[in-house]
Amino acid sequence: MARIETAHGAGGKIMQRLIEEIILPSFGRTRLGPVGLEEMDDGASLDSEGRFIVCTDAHTVQPLFFPGGDIGHLTACGTINDLTAMGAQPIAMTNTVIVEEGFEIEDLQRILHSLNSIIEPLGVAMIAGDTKVMPRGTIDGLVMSTTGIGRVYLDHPITDSGAQPGDDIIVTGPIGDHGTALLAHREGLEFETSLTSDVAPLWEPVRSALDVGGVHAMKDPTRGGTAVALNEIATKSEVVFELMESQIPIRPAVRSLCEILGLNPLHMSSEGRIVMTVDSSKTEDILSALQNYPSTHDAAVIGTVKPGKPRVLLHTTVGGRKVVQVPLGEPVPRVC
Amino acid sequence: MARIETAHGAGGKIMQRLIEEIILPSFGRTRLGPVGLEEMDDGASLDSEGRFIVCTDAHTVQPLFFPGGDIGHLTACGTINDLTAMGAQPIAMTNTVIVEEGFEIEDLQRILHSLNSIIEPLGVAMIAGDTKVMPRGTIDGLVMSTTGIGRVYLDHPITDSGAQPGDDIIVTGPIGDHGTALLAHREGLEFETSLTSDVAPLWEPVRSALDVGGVHAMKDPTRGGTAVALNEIATKSEVVFELMESQIPIRPAVRSLCEILGLNPLHMSSEGRIVMTVDSSKTEDILSALQNYPSTHDAAVIGTVKPGKPRVLLHTTVGGRKVVQVPLGEPVPRVC
Repeated sequence: MARIETAHGAGGKIMQRLIEEIILPSFGRTRLGPVGLEEMDDGASLDSEGRFIVCTDAHTVQPLFFPGGDIGHLTACGTINDLTAMGAQPIAMTNTVIVEEGFEIEDLQRILHSLNSIIEPLGVAMIAGDTKVMPRGTIDGLVMSTTGIGRVYLDHPITDSGAQPGDDIIVTGPIGDHGTALLAHREGLEFETSLTSDVAPLWEPVRSALDVGGVHAMKDPTRGGTAVALNEIATKSEVVFELMESQIPIRPAVRSLCEILGLNPLHMSSEGRIVMTVDSSKTEDILSALQNYPSTHDAAVIGTVKPGKPRVLLHTTVGGRKVVQVPLGEPVPRVC
Repeated sequence: MARIETAHGAGGKIMQRLIEEIILPSFGRTRLGPVGLEEMDDGASLDSEGRFIVCTDAHTVQPLFFPGGDIGHLTACGTINDLTAMGAQPIAMTNTVIVEEGFEIEDLQRILHSLNSIIEPLGVAMIAGDTKVMPRGTIDGLVMSTTGIGRVYLDHPITDSGAQPGDDIIVTGPIGDHGTALLAHREGLEFETSLTSDVAPLWEPVRSALDVGGVHAMKDPTRGGTAVALNEIATKSEVVFELMESQIPIRPAVRSLCEILGLNPLHMSSEGRIVMTVDSSKTEDILSALQNYPSTHDAAVIGTVKPGKPRVLLHTTVGGRKVVQVPLGEPVPRVC
């Protein structure tokens, strides 16, 4: 009998298959508005008019405290960025905590404070919660699950299917920091680098981009990395993405660690980045708007959208061209 | 340093203290409408007018498949009954699954089908989800977390603070079946009894009670059992509950198993019951309405609400009177 593998939760092709073949067909009713469960977008419509968005995530990151943040920051930012990627202003969250017997209460407190330190400045209310304890040895420390609720900022949500030929492709900063920092930390390589997670909430900078206008599609490149995020937009929008390798911001530490470990930075998760496609007449204004904020200061155009059979192409620095595939899964387990 | 104990998740006093001292003070903003996080009710308001309710729960029941149901039924009913207890018609759910590497996909499918078998007939949409996999040995099988969204059915939510002196107290059926059935199953006592979980969705029968009018307070007696549910309503409403022991419906199998094991049926969880206080002029009509549905066919009046210092008193069958305390915790771990 088929069994769950770690790749089933890793954001790539194997996970997509589990969702499409097992999870989606289990449910008879899957939508309340324009965006439902089948769209497998960053969130779904909570009402028939599509004015409110809901998103949900389980958080199983390991270790709980990592360079640049902890599971509290990650939980808050994951939720805020999912809503943000739908073009929705985050207004509320719910949170469940499942914690192992013997866990230090001070650590729980620290995690909840991290979570609050992200959401409170944005005016996001924590309106409901639940706490469960599992006996020692039946769960590794602590996991959390959150649901976020947001109000669509413009007159429509921004979906994965909105990219149009002629758009520019923007990424809001260097890619793959989070996954690579976690990997380095776990492998004991963190003293060779000062690499930290990029975990950050992106609502405010993205709102400033939405204010410019011309944002057609957005996604946060978490599990499976930028490769998955771009492929999902290209597939759902039925367009070709042409990326210029030389323009993709990647920190030297991420590049060299990935090289040492035989990994592709495009497959490594970010927790404080968004990729977007934008009307090319607005590109400069959107970049300027983003560059006003520390978390999106290094936003850059990394390619353009073309018509054609959906795929993501990379024009390499040495003049070649290759297809950027959806990986089977994020190469690093439990990054989020 | 203080550490988490199983009682911190068991629904009683120790859990209340964790929530009041550690969890609530962590958050700066905790409400969007009339019912917020501090009320620690079954759900919270999603809007300033109080028209929509959101609730959230983590589900860690062990074993996943138990007499009378599985974690899928439990997840669906827990969510539906929390919304129901707020007087809100369930309209949507989100669900996250955290599953152990090596888990049988067929079991996952069976669980999701159980979940859908409860929500689809009620027209509840599953609009968003997330799946995470944890390596073998880091989580015991599978846990789920759900968020439910409901529309307030009358012109106001039904809260724990609504009970009024003069009200009758109704329970919708025999108490403690779920916790006792799980305990019997785990202890290998299930062949001596045909006891099964009472897990059931209660929206439809409760709607018929709301249609009668006069429902003042409701709660589903899950973790910590009927003792916790009644004490919470009495405390928040600032009233005295006087219960007649002879009128409380308890199955003989629950009574005898609890006697053997030295447990109190009032502390055992139910997953298909609601306690409510109602205007005494409506009691008969509400009972008639409830008794039309199989899941609430045995609804009964178990006492009355009096003015006075908040507490729950039990008039025993032998003519005595005792205080029904909030237990330290549900005596059986991982019931929900």
